[in-house]
Amino acid sequence: MSQPINFTRIVLNSRPVGDIEPQTFRPEQVSFASLKQKLGDNDVFVQVTWLSLDPAMRGWLRDVRSYLPPVQIGEVMRASGLGIVIAKGKKSKLPIGQLVTGTVGMTLSALFLISTNFESLYHSGWTEYAVLPEKHVTPINVPKGIQDIDFLNNIGMAGFTAYFGLKDVGNLRPGETLVVSGAAGAVGSLVCQLGKSMGAKVYAIAGSKDKCSWLVDEIGVDAAFNYKQKGWEEDFKKQVGYLDVYFDNVGGDILDFCLTRLKKDARIVLCGAISAYNSAKPKGLQNYLTLIAMRAKIQGFIVFDYENRYPEAVQVISKGLIDGSIKRKFHIVEGLEKAPEALPLLFSGGNTGKLVVKVADPKDVRAKL
Amino acid sequence: MSQPINFTRIVLNSRPVGDIEPQTFRPEQVSFASLKQKLGDNDVFVQVTWLSLDPAMRGWLRDVRSYLPPVQIGEVMRASGLGIVIAKGKKSKLPIGQLVTGTVGMTLSALFLISTNFESLYHSGWTEYAVLPEKHVTPINVPKGIQDIDFLNNIGMAGFTAYFGLKDVGNLRPGETLVVSGAAGAVGSLVCQLGKSMGAKVYAIAGSKDKCSWLVDEIGVDAAFNYKQKGWEEDFKKQVGYLDVYFDNVGGDILDFCLTRLKKDARIVLCGAISAYNSAKPKGLQNYLTLIAMRAKIQGFIVFDYENRYPEAVQVISKGLIDGSIKRKFHIVEGLEKAPEALPLLFSGGNTGKLVVKVADPKDVRAKL
Repeated sequence: MSQPINFTRIVLNSRPVGDIEPQTFRPEQVSFASLKQKLGDNDVFVQVTWLSLDPAMRGWLRDVRSYLPPVQIGEVMRASGLGIVIAKGKKSKLPIGQLVTGTVGMTLSALFLISTNFESLYHSGWTEYAVLPEKHVTPINVPKGIQDIDFLNNIGMAGFTAYFGLKDVGNLRPGETLVVSGAAGAVGSLVCQLGKSMGAKVYAIAGSKDKCSWLVDEIGVDAAFNYKQKGWEEDFKKQVGYLDVYFDNVGGDILDFCLTRLKKDARIVLCGAISAYNSAKPKGLQNYLTLIAMRAKIQGFIVFDYENRYPEAVQVISKGLIDGSIKRKFHIVEGLEKAPEALPLLFSGGNTGKLVVKVADPKDVRAKL
Repeated sequence: MSQPINFTRIVLNSRPVGDIEPQTFRPEQVSFASLKQKLGDNDVFVQVTWLSLDPAMRGWLRDVRSYLPPVQIGEVMRASGLGIVIAKGKKSKLPIGQLVTGTVGMTLSALFLISTNFESLYHSGWTEYAVLPEKHVTPINVPKGIQDIDFLNNIGMAGFTAYFGLKDVGNLRPGETLVVSGAAGAVGSLVCQLGKSMGAKVYAIAGSKDKCSWLVDEIGVDAAFNYKQKGWEEDFKKQVGYLDVYFDNVGGDILDFCLTRLKKDARIVLCGAISAYNSAKPKGLQNYLTLIAMRAKIQGFIVFDYENRYPEAVQVISKGLIDGSIKRKFHIVEGLEKAPEALPLLFSGGNTGKLVVKVADPKDVRAKL
């Protein structure tokens, strides 16, 4: 393997109050040799190839009680990712060149995120290289018809989030009306497609004319509404009427509007709130009284809770990817150093489809082995 | 039966935007003879003895899509109530003097409310007399140890709301922490007691020192918090920590605060929102993001949906009333004409326990038969 003198990692520099700003993150140069020295007998040394940028990452920067501890100041930014084993400890059994994803007992979870937080031992996340215990790593073999970065998307956390959120939390049934916000995003666009395949009427809410066209023409929703266009709510009322399931990725005003459009026994799947993550004090929901009259519920969920059922989602979604019935789009940013300025795209609506950072080309990595 | 020339009923005069005001309702004098003329062969003529005042009534004044159509301007105000049969049609089988409650297929529902709205034929609700189809009426025989007005409270809608809200929507389990707001009200005080009997730690939120003392000393909660006392939230945090089930009767700021105190998998039972019913634009919930991190849910419900299981609730609650383990308190207002000024007490916190209007003394009614 080739050995650079130093490599780059990006740490949390200061905790943002509102939007992510240039001073939120700070790159660091780290001695490659010093990291390699930490390689224990049961570890693997991984070169990161791809990193996933997810709305949930904004939440990890908040110093509040949550489903994971916050990223600490000075820690490498947590992220899901893929990498290739370029060196290994004496007792490791994985071959050099193996594509892996980091896990703590999460099969196929496509996460590189745990080790920094639960063990405070390993630097992964926004980094070019990481040392990880082999037991925390899952080898991935990419089937024909599937790309490696699908493991960060539809057959990774985004896909599992869409699948279990819609099926288990939303309990969507054939013939029902499903509304999806953030519909042009990684999770949203899969929710739309799964909803159609489950026999629902599917209506999308997104933030541009282009996104809406993509959703109708490619993703196959029944109609799409551009919430940045004045008066979209009136169009929505006319075309959609009332809804059974609202899969909410954005929170805020759109969630508040959808609260007025509930049918009896409606379910709101609270998946994310990209409109609110960046606010110190998000604008409040005013229309929650309709939940009583409509016997409706708002339910939050965290995809990790469905870990033991990930294989079920993988099976369904892989099939769709391979036979071409599930469409996806990637928004690729080149270079780890671009991660801090790319992350805010998720909150400004600057991406269509799954936002990923290419840290190193897998071919180049393997060529140097 | 004695026959007055006229009797009083109270109609909706103007739709309130915020608080209920003097001009919201208007009394009317109606010819007794003209009502009696409407008595058909299958009807009963009922003199109303008691009426129930409930927070839900504020909702019935709003001209919005809801679980029942709104009361219309000029219509008799809808209310639950009890009455005594003082005359009957030829084919009616109920005895004169029978205590009844109006129903449309709702056994034991203690409702006088349906006929005006679903059939637009009969005047009931806030009225001294009503003609009702016998099939819409359920005779009540009051067991020893139970009062007639318990049928408007713990073994009426308030009791069923407490029972099914806590058990089915809240899914409260032994050892869990239950928090109840509006805890000194009809529903709240029963929820507290049911919670204790189900083996939960129970914490009450109410609006005065006296209410809190009553809740601790009589109702038996583990602690009670007076939300009108500055700094109560800090006491709550220290004593309660986090909660599994929040039974919400008030909405608004207290609901928003409780959103920050959720344990994993917490359930918020959205029963009512007395702090918000009177607002044209209620203050919004800002802390809903915790629902995601805590995999929690907010769920609304309407007690009518549990109609076929009312007998289950009656059995459990009657037993507690008879053996004295379930305590209740009535706040009695004398005279139908006082109903309009009494109703707002529910929203200002002016009542402790169940608010009822005594329209006529049952003894006097029966004495004149």
